[in-house]
Amino acid sequence: MKYVLYYWPGIQGRGEFVRLALEEGGADYVDIALVAEKKGGGVPAIERFLEGEDVERAPFAPPFLAAGRQLIGQTANILLFLGPRLALAPRDAAGRLWVNQLQLTIADLVDEAHDTHHPIASGLYYEQQKAEAKRRAEDFRANRIPKFLDYFEHVIERNPSRGPWMAGATRTYADLSMAQAIAGLRYAFPNAMRSALRSRPRLARLHDAAFALPRVKRYLASDRRLAFSNDDIFRRYPELGG
Amino acid sequence: MKYVLYYWPGIQGRGEFVRLALEEGGADYVDIALVAEKKGGGVPAIERFLEGEDVERAPFAPPFLAAGRQLIGQTANILLFLGPRLALAPRDAAGRLWVNQLQLTIADLVDEAHDTHHPIASGLYYEQQKAEAKRRAEDFRANRIPKFLDYFEHVIERNPSRGPWMAGATRTYADLSMAQAIAGLRYAFPNAMRSALRSRPRLARLHDAAFALPRVKRYLASDRRLAFSNDDIFRRYPELGG
Repeated sequence: MKYVLYYWPGIQGRGEFVRLALEEGGADYVDIALVAEKKGGGVPAIERFLEGEDVERAPFAPPFLAAGRQLIGQTANILLFLGPRLALAPRDAAGRLWVNQLQLTIADLVDEAHDTHHPIASGLYYEQQKAEAKRRAEDFRANRIPKFLDYFEHVIERNPSRGPWMAGATRTYADLSMAQAIAGLRYAFPNAMRSALRSRPRLARLHDAAFALPRVKRYLASDRRLAFSNDDIFRRYPELGG
Repeated sequence: MKYVLYYWPGIQGRGEFVRLALEEGGADYVDIALVAEKKGGGVPAIERFLEGEDVERAPFAPPFLAAGRQLIGQTANILLFLGPRLALAPRDAAGRLWVNQLQLTIADLVDEAHDTHHPIASGLYYEQQKAEAKRRAEDFRANRIPKFLDYFEHVIERNPSRGPWMAGATRTYADLSMAQAIAGLRYAFPNAMRSALRSRPRLARLHDAAFALPRVKRYLASDRRLAFSNDDIFRRYPELGG
């Protein structure tokens, strides 16, 4: 099966959680952001689906994935679909639900990380909500990061398989997303994360183990992997504690 | 199968999306919020799972559902599990993914509705973030409500079954959640929603059709259905346009 990933060009964004799964799963895929507009790629290709009146099951927003005639939106939903196909999810139904549950909790964390720099409106610039962002980021660093990381640290600790992963003995797509979330938080809040990870060694180990998987490592070293930046979900602003 | 729903007592909250599915699906379930603490219910029953070191797959937060020995967290994940069991989801895999995708988009809308009164920190009181809430609510009413409602209106319009529902010819759990979200938004922003629904007749019809389903109607008339309130996700504050 050949997959087509639709996500905005130039940023990692939420598309990156899907890219990491496609890469680690060895999938045959096209990233539409890397295809020239002349050749049917780029932003117009995305907008055709978002605005197309002829699309029966249109997504609300990118990322979305085309798999044959099927069009699948919402990051966690795309991963739920890809998981078993790319051997990145447990084989049993209960295990798959558990991984989906973890993925949705990671999504909550990522949403909150985004809202530290956009607490008022995603349609306004950061500069238009800087004062509010400062308050929100303060709370995020002091309360939310510890709460989420404590939770995931315990998840790894309670996994009976005792490896570096959250669910079972092998890596799942939720592990890849967790590693990406940690990397993003480290970029955005280097000081807060340094001490946060010192007291949560299992999460630090999961991050390192996921980013050391041969296919992931190759992807991260390639020019397909974009750098973190302040046009993205995770942003480093000194005034927000970054 | 007997289910146990764990959610905070006294509010509808995110538990209500699960309750509506359990009710419409005719499920045999216990709502732990309605069980006295002496009899093993209430808040202590919830906290035992959240804090219990002996729980292998602990949820991050309520709602969560016990189904036999399985414990399932995250609203959309609980509904993904219940959907086929309660005949509230399509039979085909693609249809189930589509309904999950809709549910996750509804969850995004509900999160944003919550953040109108808590844009800075969920751990602070509304009164401590009133100025920021005013700005966020303004954007939510002007930009986000129209964007989400337009999307869902088109979903109903493009459903080839041409009934009142979003996916196929019969109601799914996403329809129930959509009706609840509309009811909540109407409570919180009555003026904005009056005009918003006037130009989106399909959504108004979906709401009415879902809340007129015999089992749902019976539930809404029962004392198990709590009223909307300003301790909940959807809140009516005049200064936020409510």
